[in-house]
Amino acid sequence: MERGGLVSPWQAAHRQIKRKKYSILDHNRLNKSKGSTLSNGGISLHSAVKRKLVEDKDYVFDKRLRYNVRQNESNCRFRDIVVRKEEGFTHILLSSQTSDNNALTPEIMTEVRRALGNASVDDSKLLLLSAVGSVFCSGLDYSYLIGRLSSDRRKESTRIAESIRDFVKAFIQFKKPIVVAINGPALGLGASILPLCDIVWASEKAWFQTPCATIRLTPAGCSSYTFPQILGVALANEMLFCGRKLTAQEACSRGLVSQVFWPTTFSQEVMLRVKEMATCSAVVLEESKYLVRSFLKSALEGVNEKECQMLKQLWSSSKGLDSLFSYLQGKIYEV
Amino acid sequence: MERGGLVSPWQAAHRQIKRKKYSILDHNRLNKSKGSTLSNGGISLHSAVKRKLVEDKDYVFDKRLRYNVRQNESNCRFRDIVVRKEEGFTHILLSSQTSDNNALTPEIMTEVRRALGNASVDDSKLLLLSAVGSVFCSGLDYSYLIGRLSSDRRKESTRIAESIRDFVKAFIQFKKPIVVAINGPALGLGASILPLCDIVWASEKAWFQTPCATIRLTPAGCSSYTFPQILGVALANEMLFCGRKLTAQEACSRGLVSQVFWPTTFSQEVMLRVKEMATCSAVVLEESKYLVRSFLKSALEGVNEKECQMLKQLWSSSKGLDSLFSYLQGKIYEV
Amino acid sequence: MERGGLVSPWQAAHRQIKRKKYSILDHNRLNKSKGSTLSNGGISLHSAVKRKLVEDKDYVFDKRLRYNVRQNESNCRFRDIVVRKEEGFTHILLSSQTSDNNALTPEIMTEVRRALGNASVDDSKLLLLSAVGSVFCSGLDYSYLIGRLSSDRRKESTRIAESIRDFVKAFIQFKKPIVVAINGPALGLGASILPLCDIVWASEKAWFQTPCATIRLTPAGCSSYTFPQILGVALANEMLFCGRKLTAQEACSRGLVSQVFWPTTFSQEVMLRVKEMATCSAVVLEESKYLVRSFLKSALEGVNEKECQMLKQLWSSSKGLDSLFSYLQGKIYEV
Repeated sequence: MERGGLVSPWQAAHRQIKRKKYSILDHNRLNKSKGSTLSNGGISLHSAVKRKLVEDKDYVFDKRLRYNVRQNESNCRFRDIVVRKEEGFTHILLSSQTSDNNALTPEIMTEVRRALGNASVDDSKLLLLSAVGSVFCSGLDYSYLIGRLSSDRRKESTRIAESIRDFVKAFIQFKKPIVVAINGPALGLGASILPLCDIVWASEKAWFQTPCATIRLTPAGCSSYTFPQILGVALANEMLFCGRKLTAQEACSRGLVSQVFWPTTFSQEVMLRVKEMATCSAVVLEESKYLVRSFLKSALEGVNEKECQMLKQLWSSSKGLDSLFSYLQGKIYEV
Repeated sequence: MERGGLVSPWQAAHRQIKRKKYSILDHNRLNKSKGSTLSNGGISLHSAVKRKLVEDKDYVFDKRLRYNVRQNESNCRFRDIVVRKEEGFTHILLSSQTSDNNALTPEIMTEVRRALGNASVDDSKLLLLSAVGSVFCSGLDYSYLIGRLSSDRRKESTRIAESIRDFVKAFIQFKKPIVVAINGPALGLGASILPLCDIVWASEKAWFQTPCATIRLTPAGCSSYTFPQILGVALANEMLFCGRKLTAQEACSRGLVSQVFWPTTFSQEVMLRVKEMATCSAVVLEESKYLVRSFLKSALEGVNEKECQMLKQLWSSSKGLDSLFSYLQGKIYEV
Repeated sequence: MERGGLVSPWQAAHRQIKRKKYSILDHNRLNKSKGSTLSNGGISLHSAVKRKLVEDKDYVFDKRLRYNVRQNESNCRFRDIVVRKEEGFTHILLSSQTSDNNALTPEIMTEVRRALGNASVDDSKLLLLSAVGSVFCSGLDYSYLIGRLSSDRRKESTRIAESIRDFVKAFIQFKKPIVVAINGPALGLGASILPLCDIVWASEKAWFQTPCATIRLTPAGCSSYTFPQILGVALANEMLFCGRKLTAQEACSRGLVSQVFWPTTFSQEVMLRVKEMATCSAVVLEESKYLVRSFLKSALEGVNEKECQMLKQLWSSSKGLDSLFSYLQGKIYEV
C-alpha cells in the first residue's frame, strides 16, 4: 500500500471535517469524490447520474438571471458558470452549483477553460469575467482537495495540480482583453489570477486574500511572480506568507485593482465601460494586449509550471499533506 | 492605384476635419503637408519658403521668454522648441509654433532629437525638459497624421512610425539624467515618454492620458512595457484601453510622477532642485543612471521597435485607417 | 608613491573631519583603522587588544537587553550585533558598538554575514532583523570610509567594495524568509537592502533615504534595480539622485514597506506576527520564498557585482575621492 499508516489520520480528519463544518452540499460532493475514486479519478457513470440529481436539487441561485440566460440562444451549456454572448463581448459569470462561494474544483476550472476557449474564437472583442452572488471566488475548494487527496494522494495531487496549471495557462494565453469585475471577496486562486486579467474593477465590498503559507500551501496562479511586480515584494510577501487581507481601496492604491466603484451601481458602471471598450477596433484591442503581454508570457508560463510542480510535490508528500490536514483540522476545532 | 476606392472617403473626412475643427494654423500646416507630398514626403523648396513665412506669422507665444532665449548666445536655432544652456544643465522647452498644444509632428520630434544629441555631448550634467504654455504635450498631431496618411498612406505610415521610433529611441539612449517638469496635460506620446525620463515632477494642474485604443491606436513610447511596470497591469490597461485620465496626485501616488508641486511656485521648485542636482558629480550622475537603466535598455529598444512596427501596419492597412478616420470624424460631428 | 600630491588634501580633510565632528568613539575607531593599515588592511594583534578595551569602554547600550541576551545559551558571540535564537526563528539585532547609529563597517557587515550563515543552517524557519536604539541603520560609516581611503585608497577601495558586495550577496542568497522591523531612520545601504528582505514592517518613526548622488556615491545594495521596480523609476531616481526622504507612510503607500505600526506597540505587533509566521511549515515558507525570488536571484547578483565594481572605481579614482572628500568637508563646515 502506498500511503501505509498515514491513511487513517487523514481519513479521520477528513471525516471530522465533513461532520463538523461542511454543508449537505459539500457532503454530496465529497461522496461523489469518493465514488469517482473507484474509476481512478474519472467520473463514474454512477456518480454522473447522482450529480444530475444534486444539480437539480442544489438549484439555489439567482433564478431570474438563470432564466434570462437560458433564453439566450448563444449560451452554451455549463453547470458551474454562466456564459452570455453580448454585443461585442463575452460575459462569463462564476456561479458554482457544486461548490460553496464559487470555490474552484478541477471540474469548474475545466468549464472556465472551455468557455475561454470558445470566447477566443468567437466574434467578441473582449471578455468580461464576474460572479453571481456575494463572493467573487473563494479559491481552491479545500474540502474537495482533502477528499480527493485523502483517497489517493499520488494520483489526485497530479490531477489537481495539472488542472490548476491548465486553468491558469488558459488565462495567460487568452489573446483578447479580459475585464474582471470583483463583486466581493476574492481569495486564493481567485485573487491570484487577477494580474493575468487586463483590467480589474472592484466593488467597495470586495477584498483580497491569498493566505498560502498560512494554509500550508505554496503560491499559485503566478502570484509568486505577479504580486511582487505589482504590490512590491514586501506587501506581496505579507499577503503570501501572513495572509494579509487587502480592502478594495488598498488593492486599488497598490495597483492590483484599477478602480473601485460603489456596490449599488457597480454592475452598471462596469457594463457602461465594457460596452464602450467593445466599440474599439478588435485588432487594436488584441494588438495592444499583445504588446503589453508578449514579453511576459513565457515568464508567466514558466512560473505557472513551477508553482504547480511545487503544489504537486507538497500534496504527494506525506509531510506536506499532514501539515495541510492538521491545519484544517485545527480550524474545525476552532469553529 | 494603391488605395483605390478607399481614397475618397478618407480625403472627404480629411476635408471635413479641416473645415470643421482646425484653426488657420492647422490649415497652413495641412497645406504644407500636401505640398511636400509632391516631393515624396521630403520638404520641397517651395514649402520651405512657405514655412519661413508661416513661422514668422505664427509667432504667437511668450514673447518675453523667446526674447530672453534669443539673447542667449549658446542657444541653438530651433523652430518648435527652445533650448537654453544653464549652469550645469541644458533646458529644453516644448514650444511648438507649427502645432497646437505642443502636439508632436515628425519635424518637431526631429528638433527634440537634435537637441538631445547636442545635450549629450555638451558639458551639462543633466537635462531639464519642460514646456511653454499651459499644456505640456498633447501627443501626436492627429490632423497632421490624417493629412499625411490620406495623401500617401504607404509612404507616410513608414515615415511617421520611423520618426516616432527615433524620437523614443533618443530618450532611451540619452545617458545623462533627464528631469521632466509637467506644467499641464500630458497626452498620448507626451505621457508615454515620461517613464523614459528619470525624474518626473508635476504641477497640481497636470494630468495624464493615453487613450490609444479609444482613438484606434496601439501604444507607443514604450508605454506597453513601462506603464504596467510602474502602474500595475490593471491601471496601465485602463489607461491604454479605456483612456482613463490620471490627475497629478493619482499619477504621483501610482508612481508615474515623483512629486507634485503647487502651480504658482512650480517652476521655482523645479529650478531649485535641478540646480542642486547640477552640483553633483557628472560621473556619479551618469554612472547612477547607467546602473538604473542599463538592464532595461535593450528591452525598451525592442519594445519601441515592436510598437512602431505595429503603428506602421495599422496606418498602412485600409482597415486600420478607416477605423481611425471614422473615429476622428465622429469626434468632429460631436463638436 | 601611488597617490602623489593628492594625499595631503585628503589627509587634511580627514583630520578636520575627525577634529570637528566625530566623537571619541569615532576617534578610537579611526586610530584603529590607522593601526590596521600597517598590517595591510588585516587586523593586527595590537589593534585586536585595543579593540577589546574599546569594546568594554564603549559599552553604552540597552544594558537590560544585553543582559538578557547574555543569558541566552544559544546566543553566539558578536560585537556589533546581537543574535537571539527564538522559538522557530532567529532574531538579529543591529547594535553597533564600534560605529554611531548602527553605521556599517566591513567588520560589522562580516558579523551580519556570519549570523546569516548560522541562521541559514539552524532549525529556525525565518529570520527577524531589527535594531537596538532609535536608528535602524545609518548606512555605510563615512568616517571609517574616509579614514581608510585616505590611508590607502587602492587597497581599501577594493576591500570595502568587496565587503559590501559580500554583505549584499548574503541577503540575496538567504533562503529562509527575512522579516525586517524598522524602528527608526534607515539610510543608504540600510535602506537599500530592504527590498532584498521579504517582509518590511516599519514604526511610524521610521524614515528612508538613499542620498547616493548627493554624497557623490553611486547606488548600492541592488537599489539601482529594486527601487525602480518597487517605487517606479521617477521616485526611485528622486531618492537616488536628489536624496528624497520618504516617511514611513510614504514608503508604505509606495510599496517599500508593507505595514506601518504605532511606535509604542511596534515590537509587540512585529513579534506577534513573526511568531504566527513561525508556526507555518518550514518547507512551505522556504519553497514560497524560492518561488518569489528564484527568477530575480541571478539578476540581483549581477546588479550587486556591477554596483560594487562602480563604487570601487569611484573610490580608487582621485577624482571620485576628491569629490567625496570635498562634499564631506563642506558638510563639516556647515555643522
